[in-house]
Amino acid sequence: MTLKILNIEGCKLPLLFNMRNKMRKLTIKELNRPSLEEFKKTEKIGLVIILDNIRSLNNIGSVFRTSDAFLVEKVFLCGISTPPPHPEIHKTALGAEDSVEWEYCTSPMDAISRLSEEGWTIVGIEQVEKSIMLGEFIPDKGKKYALILGNEVKGVMQEAIDQCDFCLEIPQQGTKHSLNISVSAGIVIWHFYSRMME
Amino acid sequence: MTLKILNIEGCKLPLLFNMRNKMRKLTIKELNRPSLEEFKKTEKIGLVIILDNIRSLNNIGSVFRTSDAFLVEKVFLCGISTPPPHPEIHKTALGAEDSVEWEYCTSPMDAISRLSEEGWTIVGIEQVEKSIMLGEFIPDKGKKYALILGNEVKGVMQEAIDQCDFCLEIPQQGTKHSLNISVSAGIVIWHFYSRMME
Repeated sequence: MTLKILNIEGCKLPLLFNMRNKMRKLTIKELNRPSLEEFKKTEKIGLVIILDNIRSLNNIGSVFRTSDAFLVEKVFLCGISTPPPHPEIHKTALGAEDSVEWEYCTSPMDAISRLSEEGWTIVGIEQVEKSIMLGEFIPDKGKKYALILGNEVKGVMQEAIDQCDFCLEIPQQGTKHSLNISVSAGIVIWHFYSRMME
Repeated sequence: MTLKILNIEGCKLPLLFNMRNKMRKLTIKELNRPSLEEFKKTEKIGLVIILDNIRSLNNIGSVFRTSDAFLVEKVFLCGISTPPPHPEIHKTALGAEDSVEWEYCTSPMDAISRLSEEGWTIVGIEQVEKSIMLGEFIPDKGKKYALILGNEVKGVMQEAIDQCDFCLEIPQQGTKHSLNISVSAGIVIWHFYSRMME
């Protein structure tokens, strides 16, 4: 090993240092992911996602893939949100549409009223008056949260917002008005997962 | 207003409560986003993104949109990563490809060696031996970070990993091996932004 390094022409000390401390990429086997059967039995975090009329199948697929990674209990596909199976959802979800539990509801209001009655805290992901900035919010590990993500253009419908316990907002300082749904979902699901697993 | 509420058939107290505390969605004007000119002058956070051979134009567009929202200083598009302008990038970036500074490099190694010489801390976003879990990492506000995001299939190239100061890993517990690039980018950029702005 040392001989090999010394043989490299023009070898500099930083390279020598880095090669000695080489960070090897993990193989898929080493990642030790659960099988579909193991995953189904794994305890999930107290988090469900309500998709309020999401148009893009790419966004839906991405929400499934993120929900699989962070142990989301269930995804509610509402209104125009296309449920699996669908080749376009599969292209992004890569099979996570089979591992994550889901249900279709004609309206997000159906999912909201049922979850509300079952004691879930309903949270809109939206830029509203009195919204709480995501970085300032610490989830209560004793509670269960249902997060509503809204349509690509219209956002979360006002009727749904009116039934929320509160809204979370991802603070943004750019020229654009919002983030992609799949990115917003990733950020908020990670926020809940990382704090609920602490 | 009160009369209207009382007239709703089967009206329940929670509805009454919610309507009284209605959270109004903010208008685009109320979001008070900067113009392109104002944004260009806004101080950015000490963060650049190196895209190592990203194939999907959707992922590239999404990285631009997220970088706009969280004040990323620059995006380096390397190897097969297509630079703007491109209609497919625009479809996802929605103009953020004009607000965020960018540069094309033939190889990510060019960007890495230059940034390294300029004193940037080079960070691979990858699952490697000795990687640091994202939730455990707090960025040093006095430092500047260059994050490398790798190809959709191959991840960050080992040659680039070898030049990293360290690697950050987004812990995942699902059946899939990784998250979408655009979601990973969203989570790590948000992690740096929210902690560097604290």
